[in-house]
Order: sequence, then C-alpha cells, then structure tokens
Amino acid sequence: MGVFGIFAGEKTNVASSVYYGLYALQHRGQESAGIVVNDDGVFTSYNDSGIVNDVFTKDRLEGLGQGNMAIGHVRYGTLGTKGRINAEPIVINHVKGKLAIATAGGIVNASELKRELELQGMIFHTTNAAEVVSYVITKERISSSSIEEAVVRSMERIDGGFCMLLMSPQKMIAVRDKHGFHPICYGQRESGEYVIASESCALDSVGATFIRELDPGEIIVFSSKGIESIRDHCGKARESLCVFEYIYTARPDSTISGLSVHEARARAGALLAAAHPVEADVVVGVPDSGLDAAIGYANASGIPYGIGLIKNKYIGRTFIAPGQDVREDKVKIKLNPVRSTLNGKRVVLVDDSIVRGTTCAKLVGLLKNAGAVEVHIRSSAPPFLNPCYYGTDIDSKESLIACNHTIEEIRQMTGADSIGFLRLEDLSKLGVGSSSRGFCTACFDGIYPTKPPVIYKNKYDTKISENKK
Amino acid sequence: MGVFGIFAGEKTNVASSVYYGLYALQHRGQESAGIVVNDDGVFTSYNDSGIVNDVFTKDRLEGLGQGNMAIGHVRYGTLGTKGRINAEPIVINHVKGKLAIATAGGIVNASELKRELELQGMIFHTTNAAEVVSYVITKERISSSSIEEAVVRSMERIDGGFCMLLMSPQKMIAVRDKHGFHPICYGQRESGEYVIASESCALDSVGATFIRELDPGEIIVFSSKGIESIRDHCGKARESLCVFEYIYTARPDSTISGLSVHEARARAGALLAAAHPVEADVVVGVPDSGLDAAIGYANASGIPYGIGLIKNKYIGRTFIAPGQDVREDKVKIKLNPVRSTLNGKRVVLVDDSIVRGTTCAKLVGLLKNAGAVEVHIRSSAPPFLNPCYYGTDIDSKESLIACNHTIEEIRQMTGADSIGFLRLEDLSKLGVGSSSRGFCTACFDGIYPTKPPVIYKNKYDTKISENKK
Amino acid sequence: MGVFGIFAGEKTNVASSVYYGLYALQHRGQESAGIVVNDDGVFTSYNDSGIVNDVFTKDRLEGLGQGNMAIGHVRYGTLGTKGRINAEPIVINHVKGKLAIATAGGIVNASELKRELELQGMIFHTTNAAEVVSYVITKERISSSSIEEAVVRSMERIDGGFCMLLMSPQKMIAVRDKHGFHPICYGQRESGEYVIASESCALDSVGATFIRELDPGEIIVFSSKGIESIRDHCGKARESLCVFEYIYTARPDSTISGLSVHEARARAGALLAAAHPVEADVVVGVPDSGLDAAIGYANASGIPYGIGLIKNKYIGRTFIAPGQDVREDKVKIKLNPVRSTLNGKRVVLVDDSIVRGTTCAKLVGLLKNAGAVEVHIRSSAPPFLNPCYYGTDIDSKESLIACNHTIEEIRQMTGADSIGFLRLEDLSKLGVGSSSRGFCTACFDGIYPTKPPVIYKNKYDTKISENKK
Amino acid sequence: MGVFGIFAGEKTNVASSVYYGLYALQHRGQESAGIVVNDDGVFTSYNDSGIVNDVFTKDRLEGLGQGNMAIGHVRYGTLGTKGRINAEPIVINHVKGKLAIATAGGIVNASELKRELELQGMIFHTTNAAEVVSYVITKERISSSSIEEAVVRSMERIDGGFCMLLMSPQKMIAVRDKHGFHPICYGQRESGEYVIASESCALDSVGATFIRELDPGEIIVFSSKGIESIRDHCGKARESLCVFEYIYTARPDSTISGLSVHEARARAGALLAAAHPVEADVVVGVPDSGLDAAIGYANASGIPYGIGLIKNKYIGRTFIAPGQDVREDKVKIKLNPVRSTLNGKRVVLVDDSIVRGTTCAKLVGLLKNAGAVEVHIRSSAPPFLNPCYYGTDIDSKESLIACNHTIEEIRQMTGADSIGFLRLEDLSKLGVGSSSRGFCTACFDGIYPTKPPVIYKNKYDTKISENKK
Repeated sequence: MGVFGIFAGEKTNVASSVYYGLYALQHRGQESAGIVVNDDGVFTSYNDSGIVNDVFTKDRLEGLGQGNMAIGHVRYGTLGTKGRINAEPIVINHVKGKLAIATAGGIVNASELKRELELQGMIFHTTNAAEVVSYVITKERISSSSIEEAVVRSMERIDGGFCMLLMSPQKMIAVRDKHGFHPICYGQRESGEYVIASESCALDSVGATFIRELDPGEIIVFSSKGIESIRDHCGKARESLCVFEYIYTARPDSTISGLSVHEARARAGALLAAAHPVEADVVVGVPDSGLDAAIGYANASGIPYGIGLIKNKYIGRTFIAPGQDVREDKVKIKLNPVRSTLNGKRVVLVDDSIVRGTTCAKLVGLLKNAGAVEVHIRSSAPPFLNPCYYGTDIDSKESLIACNHTIEEIRQMTGADSIGFLRLEDLSKLGVGSSSRGFCTACFDGIYPTKPPVIYKNKYDTKISENKK
Repeated sequence: MGVFGIFAGEKTNVASSVYYGLYALQHRGQESAGIVVNDDGVFTSYNDSGIVNDVFTKDRLEGLGQGNMAIGHVRYGTLGTKGRINAEPIVINHVKGKLAIATAGGIVNASELKRELELQGMIFHTTNAAEVVSYVITKERISSSSIEEAVVRSMERIDGGFCMLLMSPQKMIAVRDKHGFHPICYGQRESGEYVIASESCALDSVGATFIRELDPGEIIVFSSKGIESIRDHCGKARESLCVFEYIYTARPDSTISGLSVHEARARAGALLAAAHPVEADVVVGVPDSGLDAAIGYANASGIPYGIGLIKNKYIGRTFIAPGQDVREDKVKIKLNPVRSTLNGKRVVLVDDSIVRGTTCAKLVGLLKNAGAVEVHIRSSAPPFLNPCYYGTDIDSKESLIACNHTIEEIRQMTGADSIGFLRLEDLSKLGVGSSSRGFCTACFDGIYPTKPPVIYKNKYDTKISENKK
Repeated sequence: MGVFGIFAGEKTNVASSVYYGLYALQHRGQESAGIVVNDDGVFTSYNDSGIVNDVFTKDRLEGLGQGNMAIGHVRYGTLGTKGRINAEPIVINHVKGKLAIATAGGIVNASELKRELELQGMIFHTTNAAEVVSYVITKERISSSSIEEAVVRSMERIDGGFCMLLMSPQKMIAVRDKHGFHPICYGQRESGEYVIASESCALDSVGATFIRELDPGEIIVFSSKGIESIRDHCGKARESLCVFEYIYTARPDSTISGLSVHEARARAGALLAAAHPVEADVVVGVPDSGLDAAIGYANASGIPYGIGLIKNKYIGRTFIAPGQDVREDKVKIKLNPVRSTLNGKRVVLVDDSIVRGTTCAKLVGLLKNAGAVEVHIRSSAPPFLNPCYYGTDIDSKESLIACNHTIEEIRQMTGADSIGFLRLEDLSKLGVGSSSRGFCTACFDGIYPTKPPVIYKNKYDTKISENKK
Repeated sequence: MGVFGIFAGEKTNVASSVYYGLYALQHRGQESAGIVVNDDGVFTSYNDSGIVNDVFTKDRLEGLGQGNMAIGHVRYGTLGTKGRINAEPIVINHVKGKLAIATAGGIVNASELKRELELQGMIFHTTNAAEVVSYVITKERISSSSIEEAVVRSMERIDGGFCMLLMSPQKMIAVRDKHGFHPICYGQRESGEYVIASESCALDSVGATFIRELDPGEIIVFSSKGIESIRDHCGKARESLCVFEYIYTARPDSTISGLSVHEARARAGALLAAAHPVEADVVVGVPDSGLDAAIGYANASGIPYGIGLIKNKYIGRTFIAPGQDVREDKVKIKLNPVRSTLNGKRVVLVDDSIVRGTTCAKLVGLLKNAGAVEVHIRSSAPPFLNPCYYGTDIDSKESLIACNHTIEEIRQMTGADSIGFLRLEDLSKLGVGSSSRGFCTACFDGIYPTKPPVIYKNKYDTKISENKK
C-alpha cells in the first residue's frame, strides 16, 4: 500500500499532483485508489476499486476541485479488505472537526483495539485498520488540545508496521511506526510545496527534490507555521525495515535508507551467483521484478545476460481472460519466450521469489518448449515460511510451497534442472555500506519484531461478502 | 424517502423483488438507491447515487446474489445528505453481529444524539440520520438479549416522524414512529413471502396482497418463528399523519389509512372549487400531480376537464440541459401547451402546491401564449409557511413565496387572473369517512407534534463538499 | 421516426438546439439517435443506439462543437433496421463534396433500387433506406450542377411515404414526398435561425415560431441566399396523410395540417361514443396515448372521466425486468389501477389501438381485480388488417389479432364485457373543418396510395445479426 | 496494423481466440479494434476506438456469440483514418453475399481507385483503404464465379504494401502483396483450427503451431475443402520486406522470414557498436523497444549492460495527464532514471529510432540530472528522411528532425555528448544467414519499390472532423 500527500501554502491544483504521485506508487497496490482534497477545511473526496487510471477519470479528478493540501492512497487487495468500501483515505467528522486518514502497512493489535471499541458501542463500516485507527485518534482528540497531541497519544496504543498520512482542516501529519517497517519520505518542489510519499520515485514524478526519510517513530506536522518533527514519544525499538521492500515491493528507481532498490536487487543476484553457481549459456530474468537480480547474477557469474521472455505490456486489470475452457493460459498470454535467446541454451532463470511454485513450473515449460536444454531457477528471496503481519501480502502457510516441500521437491515440481534460493545470511549483505540497518526478515526466519496479533472473531465475521460485480 | 423489504422463508431471488418494489417507490426519492441481500447472515449490498434503473444494472443486481431476505431504500436529496456516501441502507458490523438499516422520514433529535455520541468518541462517516440511529441501536444491543429488545429500547431515545426497516442476520424488523407520520404497510405473496413497503402501490408491484399498515408506535419482527408485533413500548402520542403524503408525496394509486390518495386529491379539488369558484371554460391540471385535483375541481364545478399541458415523458435525471445561455427553458422543455384546449379559453390551472412561484409564473406565460384569455390558479395545498422536520423536503422560509408575500402579491407575481389556495380548515375534510385521523399540518399552521430540533454545529460542519462530478 | 434541423446564419451552438428538438421528437423513435454538425463544410457527427438522453452525454454533445447548421434523427426499431449501424443521419463523402441524410418514413421501392445498385457494384453497409437514397442522390449529383438539382432528379426515382432532411457543405434541404404521408414543418426563431422538424412541438421546444408545413412534393432549400421552394417536380398525387399520425404517432400538443392532434383524438373518442354507446359509471384512458380519446368519449357520452390507471413515470429503456421467472408482469410494473376510481364501477376503457390484444387482456384483468364490475373496451382506431409500407411500425399479419379473429372473439379473448372500434367511415371525420384532407388508411382498409414494394432477397439476407449486447 | 483470423471446422468460441490473438498484436495498433464472427453465414461484429481490452468488455465479447470462423483487426492512428468510423474489419453486403475485410499496410493507389469509383457514383462512409478494397472486390465479384476469383482479379488493380484477411460466408482468405512488405503467417492448433496472424507471437498466444509465412503475392483460401494456395497471379516483384518491422514494429518474440526480431535488434546493436564505438561505463536501453539493441551493443562492445530507466507499467491510453500547466512532463511520468546505475557514469543510451528528437532531449536531461557525466546516444535505425506509403506511421518531412538538421545539430539539440545512427549499409546485415531477403528501406534511402501514390483531393476532403470526445 502507498500514501502520497502534498501540502501547498495556497489554493492550487493539488489533486492533480496527488494523481501523479499515486500513479508512481501504483505498484504498491492495484485494488483501490482514493484522493481527498482539503480546501481550507472543506474536504472533497473520491475513492473506488480499481487502479488510479480507472478510478480517476478526467471528470472525477476535476470534480475534486482545488485546495491547499491533499492526500491519496493506493491499496492492494488482501482477503477481507477488498472492495470499494475499504478504499482509503477515509474521511470522518468528529466533534472538533474532520480527519482524513490513509494508512500503509499492518496494525498488529487492530483486532484487539476493534473488540475493545465495539464493546463500547463503536460501529465499524469497513474491515480495514484505518477505521480502527480513526477511532483511537478521535477518542484521544476529544481530550487533546491539538490533533498532533491526539496522534502522539494514539501511537502509544497502536502497534505494528505502518506509515500514515493524516489531514485535519489545517494540518497534514505524516507518521512512521517506531520499528520503521515501511519507507516514507518527504521532499519539496521549487515552488515550495511539501510532498510526502511512500517511495522516493513518487517525489521524482512530481518534480520534488528528496529531503529525507522519516525516522522510525517520527511524526512530522506540516502546517502554516512550517514543519514540526516529534520524536521519542513512544519509546525506542529495534529498527526493522521490511527486507521485502528491496526484494519485491518497491520500485527499482526508488531509494530506501540511502540504498538504491535496483542496486539491492542486483546485489541479491550477485550473492545468488556466489551461493548457487551453475554452468550455463544465458541468464534470463522474469519481467519485470526479476530483471535487476538477473543482471546482478549475469555480471557476477560472467554468463551473458539475455532477453528470454517478453511481457505483453497491454495486460491490465480489465483483461477478461475469456474462454478458459479452451485452456489459453494466463501466464502464456502475459509472457512469451524469445526462441532465439533460448534455443539450444542452458538457461539461468532469475525470479524475485517463489510463492506457490505454479508460475515457475509454467515458465520452465515455456522455456523448454522454446528450446532451452536446461533451466536453472534462481530466486532472489529465501523460501517463504511464515505469515507477515506488517502489510506485506504473503499467502497463508497452506499455500506456501516451501512450508510443505523440501527444496528438492520444489525443483521436481517446477521441472527445473536445479534450483537455488538466496541464503538467509545473505539478506544482511544487501545493503553493504549501510550495514547498520536492521531488517525485518520474519517471513523467512519467523523472528517477529512485535508481539503477534490476537484475532477476535465476531459471530458473523466469516460471512462477509462483496457485490461480485 | 421509501423503504422496501422482503422476508422469504428460503433462499430465493429476493434482490429482484426489492428492485421492483423500489421501482414502484421511486417517486419518494431519486437521489440514491440501495439494496442489501441477506443470505443466512452473509450481507451483500450495493448503493449509489441515482435512480433505481441507473444504480442497478443487470450485472449489479445479479451481483447481489440470492438470499432469504433483503431490504432496499430510495432517498431524495436534501441539503447535507446528498451523495453516494449517504445512500442507504447502511450496513454495520458490531460485536454481536451485523445490522442493515434503512430509514424514511426525519429524526428531530438526531443532532442532539449525534453530539452526545461524538463526545463519547463515536465517529460519523455520513451526514444522514440512519448512522445516528445505528449507533443508538448498537449501544443498546451490547446489553440486550435480542435485536428487537435493542430496537425497543432505542425507540425511547429517538423522536421524530419516521419509518425504519432493519435487518439482522436472522430477523427483519419494521418500525413506525409513535406519531405515525409516514405510512408503512405489509402484505404477503401467495408463495408466502412477507413484503414490507412505504406505500401499498409497491406491494401491488410484486404481486403481494395488502394485509395492513403498521400502527403508530408499532414494531413488527419477521423471523423464522413468524410475525411478532410489539406495541405500547414508547407511550401514546396524538396521531399525526403527514397531510402532504396525500397532497403530494404518495402515488395516487396507493391507499393510506384506508383512504385512496387519488380520492383525497380529487376531494381537495372539489373543496377548492367550493372555496374558490370562478367562471371558466376549461379545467387543466399540471402533470402529473395536479391531475387528480383538477378532475375533482372539474366535477365539482361543472367546468369541463381538459388536457392543456403535455409532459415530455422522456425527461430524466440525466437530461443535460445544454446551452442554457440560449435560454431554452427547462419548464418549456418539460411541459408544452395544447393550443386547441386553451386558445380563446378562460382556464382554471390546478397545481398541487405553490412553493417558490417561479414554475407557476412560467406556466401562466405558456398558457397565455397558447391563447388562454384568462388563467386562474388553484393550489390543492394551503400556502407553505413553516419548515418540516419530519422528512418532507420543503424549502427554507426564505424561499417560500407565501412567507414573504400576500396572496394578492403572489397572484401578481405569477401573472394569474385569480389565485386560490386550499383552505386550512378543509384539510381535515380530505378524509371524509375516516375522520378520526389526526393530521400533521405543521408546514401550513406551525403546530408541531414534537418538540423542535436543536441543531449542534461542529466547527467544520458547514464545509461539507461532495465530489461535484 | 423524426428529423430535426437548424440552419443558422453564423457559427453557434446548433448541436444543443438539435438536442432539444430531438428530445421533443423522442416519441417518434427510441431505437437510436444521431446529430451531424456542419461547421462551414466540416461535418462532425455522433450516432448510437439508445434514446437522446443516453446517446448524448454532456461530453459527446460538446464534442460536436459549434457550427452554422446541423441535423438530427431519431429512429424506432423495426426488424432489420436496428442497431448502431443503422442509426441516422448518415454522412457520406462523394466526389463533389459531402452529404448528411436523415430520413423518416418508408421508401416502397428501396429493395428494387438497392438490387439495381448492387448489380452495379455498389456496397451497402447498413440495412436502412437512407443508404439507398444516398446512392441515388450521389449518382445524380455527379451529373448535376447543384445538390438541389440532384435531389429533384432523385425524387423521380424514389417512391413512398417519407420526409428527408439533407445537409451539404453549404445548404440544408427539406423534402416531403408527393403524397404527403408524414408531417414536416419549419419555423423561425427571433434570432433568425430556421428550424425544420417532423412535428410542430419540436419547434416549440426551441422557441421557434411555426411558419408552415411543407406541401406534399415540396422541396425547400435553405442557404445563405435564403429560402427557395421547389414544387411540381415529380407530378401530382392524391394527398394521403397517414391517419395514424393523429391516432398514435404524433404528440397531442402538435398540430398537423392545421388540426390539433389532441383535438383529433378527442374527436375520435366522441365518434366512438356515438358509434358504441354503453351504460357505464366512469371513462378511463390507458396512459398516455388513450387519455385524449377518453376525454372525448366522456364529454360526448356524459359519463364522468376518471383516472383509473397510474403509469410509473420512471420506466425507461434500461428497465431490466429481472427475475421474470417470478412472474412480475411488465404491464403490472408499468400500470397500476386506482381502486377508488374503479371499485364497484362499470368502466369504459379507452385505448388508442388494439394490435395483438395481449396488453388489453391484462388491463381488463387488472381493472377487474381492482373491483370493476364491467369493463368495456373502446379503441380509437379501427382494427388493423394490413401491413404499412410507409414507415409506421405495424406488426405482420400473423400477429394482428383482427386478421385472425372476429370482433366477438377478440372481446372474449380480452375478457371485456363489450368492445368497440372506431368505424372506418368515421376516420374522415377526425378533421372536421379541414375536410379536404385525404388520408392514407391502408392499414385499416388495404387501399394503398402507391404500388406495393417488391422485395429482393440476397442469399444471406436473412442471416443478419447484431451484437446482442 | 494487425490482422488475426481463425478458421474452425465447427461452431466454437472463435471470438475468444481472436481476442487473445489481437491482444498479442496490440503493439501493432492501439487506435481501434474489431472482431467479426461468422456463424455459418451470419456475421456478428463489434468495432470501436480503443485498445482490445477497452473495446471488448466481457459482455461485448460474449455478444459476438459462437461461430465457425472469425477475423479481427487492430489499427494504429494515422491522420485521416482515426475514429470509430474507420475501425476494421468492415462488413459489407453485396448481391451475392457478404464480405468482412481487415487490412494491414498501405494501398498506394487507393486515392486513384477511390476517385475512379466515386465518378461511378460509389459512396464512401470512411476514409480508410479497406473500403476502397471492398468496392474493387465487390465489383469483380458480380462477374466472378467465386470470391477467390474476385480477389485474384482485384489484386491486379491494387498496388502497395499490405496484407489482408477476408471472410465470406463460407471461406476465409489471406492475402499478401506481391512485394511482401509486411509479415503474415499461419499455423494450426492441435484441435485442428487454422490460425492466421500478422506475427508469429499471436500464434503462440492461442497455442497454435507455426506452419509457414505466406509468400509475397500468395493468396491462401481456407474452406471446408481444406487449404488452397494461389500464386503467381499478379506477376513477380522484387521482395521488399519492411526493414522497420525488425527495428520497431514487430514484437521481439516474433520471427519474420526465419529471423528472430530480438536477434535482428541485438545485431543492430552490435553493428552500431562497431560503427560508433565510445568509451563508456554502462549501456542503457530506452524501454521497451531499445532494450534488445542495448544488449547487442553491450555484448559487442564489452561495456556492461545496466537498467537505467524504469518504465511505469501502468501507463495506458486513458492516462489523463491532468494539470499540464504545472509542467509535470509526460516523459518524466513514463520513465524514471535509476540513479545508482547512472550516477558518475559515462552512459551509452540506445533507442530504436530518433524521429523528432524531443523525447531524446528529455531523456538526456533526465540521465544527467541523475548523475550521468556523459550521455552517448545510439539509434538502432538510420535517420528518417522520407515518408512511408506502405502503412508505417512515419511523420511528415516537416517534423523529421533528420530532414532539417545535420547529425551534429541533432547532437547539440538533444544535449548528448555524441550521437550515432545505424549505417544504411548495415541494414542488409541484420539478417545474416537469411541474406537473400530484400528489404524496403525507402524511409531511409528514398528508393520506393512501387510507384508513388497520386493523391486526389475532393473539395471538402481537408475538412474532416471526428467527434472529439
């Protein structure tokens, strides 16, 4: 999930800037998108299921009008938080004003907080954590002298790995959890507007110059008085940047904690080449997120890099996949092999990760049909073994191939001639030169930086349905 | 506003029935529409701005699936409750289950209740009263042993003129306020399903036989155990049926409190003829809601009834009215005079009510251009002088022509040769034969059956905006 | 079908005026709509299936831009000319320029002409007659010195009952066939623009003053030089105005050949009362087109007029009629009886015509269920016995109830207590005072003013399909 | 432009296969898309502006129904052939049946043929060449004993660089011009259906096995009798395969004339490295079509290949580019530099071609802002100097930077440190091993394989307008 905000001194076309920003963050979530414009206390919003391009037609974007600040959100779909109803930012009215909230990440005690609030008679319209957070902040707001005081006090109650962007009538507030799980940074345009975004590539997209990332546990308040930073309000915690941000989530042209994502991926490829060398004729990456590591593997191993798979760039969410009875396979529609690269070759196929193994098996088949004599799979992530509670969409244990199978079994199931995963101990080497950085690697090693969530189920909780059309 | 519900014993196409029911109630509100289907505790819903036909495409209706019960709602647009966000039914999840709520009418103490709840930290996502009610019921539900107990206890706290339709996982509950402001009735189909609707014409539309109206203050619970009626829980009150339901709101083919709406309107026309006779050649009604009274006037006066205005039946919400600089007038687009009926004639023009007077003035102009030598306006409602707090969309005092002008001034402003309003004392005669019925006539005489609302404004309350597109 | 055009001296918002005009002519066809704007020789057009409101969204109407003239068309759906592809006006490019054509009515020798053209290698993209006409005119245009000369010469080859509106880069040309089957008139706005329309109500809708109708066989050319009338080019013919224009097609607020349509219908009701008197308590019309005759019947017979059926005014083309297995009947959805008008009464039910008899039978059932003790059907048209070749959408003989059943059988099939049709000899009395008018009454008496069509079938002609969605 | 067809022996879901095929050919045209399904002589079609995904919603695709054969088309937008009206395949009815036609390429004598036909009275509804072809074939069809005879005779009259796919009620006919400008091939599925496509990648997408390409001048007829090949009907011509198919148009995973497109591009990169060597630190390709040549350049030069630009994969036709006053640049939205690849480096930037030079200049700026110390542009095509008449969308001379500027001027205008184009003489070396192949290189060297077109302008031809919305 991704957040983007702009704080301009005066009334201007802030919605348009948020549109560009969300567009650059689209890879962080394609389930829903939303924008709230604040025109001196008047909030105008539009949210819906779909990608930014589909949700914001020209009319709808213009309908948001102008304002002096605005925030936006993109969500990816996890079970239970899909649909238009869960789209963020959410906007609420409380006795002292209004609040717009956009969150990215996971609140581990959301279920506990929700149960506590429900027992006080609070009502929930959505199944997302943002609504829980909005209640916590609103309750604190009643007895606080300012919105930032309410936010600071709320942070003592909320635990997890998350970033937030809040907008009151007069202020914009950016929040990063004390563990620093997910990136959030801000910058400034030449014209003076402050811009806040989940990734630096979104600052680039609106012509803003990167200033710095928020520190873990930092709260920054943008207001007409300027920028105020609040730290150390919720105690220290070991820094736990989600390593999967480098491996998969973030865009290669972003920089997180001073380390280029592309560079980190290329380094993963190099480490993979060292750990799992093989005699081969060509290194091929799975587009798009396996390409960086493939180049790293090629450079480190000396095996030539090649383009072995072409991705149909027109595939989108609206692809309707008709007539599946005729067995046209979606992987085959999306990726087509380049026979001249593969024919008669021993191929190293680099992908970013192996979750269920089904896509991998199909790719091995495609490559062999195109003449590859050997296919050696290299995964630039270690095997997934544990669920993530911090907002990364990793499948349940049941469907994680590595939970139920040995490496050799996986190799056989995919039909590969050899298979190699990035070693756990190599994860800490991704960021050479920024080595003090602590990573959260719970999905690989099960070491969670927070206590795990307690899930309360209401009687009819399992019976949630979306309009299917 | 209108509500419609169906309680079927088994899983069937309940959404389709609600669609037909809402369609028959469309005249009660064109701002938004919504349906919630309950399939044994799984709630599937779809709401949006627009009329039933626009909101429920074939795909969206099918997307609701089948269920054993369902409720629906149509809303008309009042200032402050417009937009998709305020569409009902609303669906909430609470600690003991789920609740879908659809309301019709006005809660006079909604603002007081909302303030009280906000001070406890409750958050409001909408500006409609249904959300306030949902909080009141949910708070009671926590300490109640059943949903109906929570509803009964809530009714002690909620005052106003309203009907409600609620749906819990296992039950459907219909509620009418103790004053009985607005109609709500139920019936049954031959196949056994119970059907609840704001007006009897909606029962007709799904082939259900009318059983009876709810009494003022009555709560009826439909469940697998059958029908249970709860009365006398909130004290007695003087019966105060909104007289405007007969004059304007309801459809002429509905029957309310045993009196045909068409009959009541025709009688208003007859009373008008007695109170404001005139020598004329033809009586013409303003389509559609002035036609019944025009026939009553014609029959009572002996002046022939004629068709003097043709309404373009294709006009709809999506009519875009382009090029208004060219002065094509919307009244002229909607209504065109029939010259052969009017030319050289002295015309009695019967309308249901005169609010701002602007439409009336345009119609007088149209008729005179078509050759009418005299135009005598007769309004089948008395002059509007007071705001309504019970869900009838009457303009503020500032724009009510009768608040600021004498009858003679109104006549001059409309260009009519004479003007006559239904007399206040004649209102009680609309229902001859059902004379015990007490009416609320507050909009005409200022006598309110409840205490008036106290409005609490939050700091940014006046700054609410909808996406304009 | 209906045509509408505006010829303005200078560049202005002509598309908007055509929109209003088509909107007023919507009753003449709901299958498709189209507008072509001519901006000094640049033609911009948009056509699609659907009613005017649906086809012309704000964006699409604005997309047509401004121009110095424009024409538009509404089509009703006959078998074989449905779908977007057949929408008019059609626009063609020929060697001497461009031509936009909109037609209303029927070309009896279209099939002969088409065959002849096809044998010369001409290609047809549509199944409508406008394309045939466009070929005839284009062929003549090559050897003519002006577009009007080409049109005049073409009229010698085209036979039938039709009006046309043509637009060349510099001129607008209105054409009425020599028999004068269908109405077409023109008027002028105060601002000077000429307006041409199928019916006078469309002139009203754009604030134009009626000047006169085209005479049968007249061609009028609007150009920068003013108005030029061309007559007597194709020989004289007996005047044959389609009597069904008065009975059903035209709007009651239009005037054709100096006779008000409303007046003609009321007179049909009076003639019906004289021919088929009955003892009854109330006269009820079937909305909307039976109401005028019902008033005529009531006034002539002395039986009171009443509102006995309420039409749901929100019904539209997009009504999806879900769950028809549940037997919610479309007639019942559309029309609901007013019990207070009907209960215990002997009812005269006046409809404009009886085609298949199925609707009539349902209405008799509805009225009797609402308490009517007797129902006497009166049809303001004689029985349909013959197909129409001149653009009126009358069913094939197979489905015309009167072709296969006696009057008494029809009475029994509908369940009515008596039934009466307008007498053939009374048709000529509809226009008392304009009695020289000759009517085409072929659908009733089989006397066709032209020779009948010869239909040529191509090998695959019966295999035409539209995309069903 | 691209064509795709499927000939199945029996009624099946052919529309779905065409959808997949067009989807794989989407890169050949994004302006419009269309499919015609032939169900034993019943043609059902749908065409519209937009990409395949947008035009063919689930409903529209299902609406095409099943059939025993189908053809489809994607068009790119050239001036004068844009808009829904020009979408192909076109379907015509003629006296001996029906014909659906889809064309790809350019007919050089289209204007001459059109003028000749217009002088015979033929009418043109579109501005595309397919309609001209349809007339030529239809005229021949009248005096031919079969559709293939008509096609063969028509080919004597039509000159240019084109492929066509035609469908009569019983047959499918694929045509390639005698020069063999553009590719077209066919294959077969295991289930027996024949599949015809502009590129081999589309055969892959539906699981068909490549059989062979059509030879220049070959016509293949698919019918219930099997496959019939017709050759040598229109004389021999020098083979002139469009070299731009390798450089830009085709997908890298396609194979044309036995040569892999990816391979040809990589070879262009290698030839470029030999002709224009430079000392540099990294070779970067412009996504997507510059990547293959960049790898070729890197491998040949020994300079490492790197990912220097990330393309936003969500950009689509509907990207609305709001607020351009704020100067968010579309190139910057689409492509973002990877600083870690570029910073402090001497960069070779490989693009497929340089047309106007404006994108190049922006990219050089982006790279330098990201820290590149030198940027050396290498274009894998020679400079464009001449218009193309064979269906490749090359700008007019006025906007071709190479027509008006020296190489050194171009270098200065783009801000590059050096610039190098593929040498004309190297074009013939792209296909080493398939060296007999003759290329059309007219856009580079002005040597046209056919006589040039003669353009006839009708009086109002320059005044063509599309509805802008």
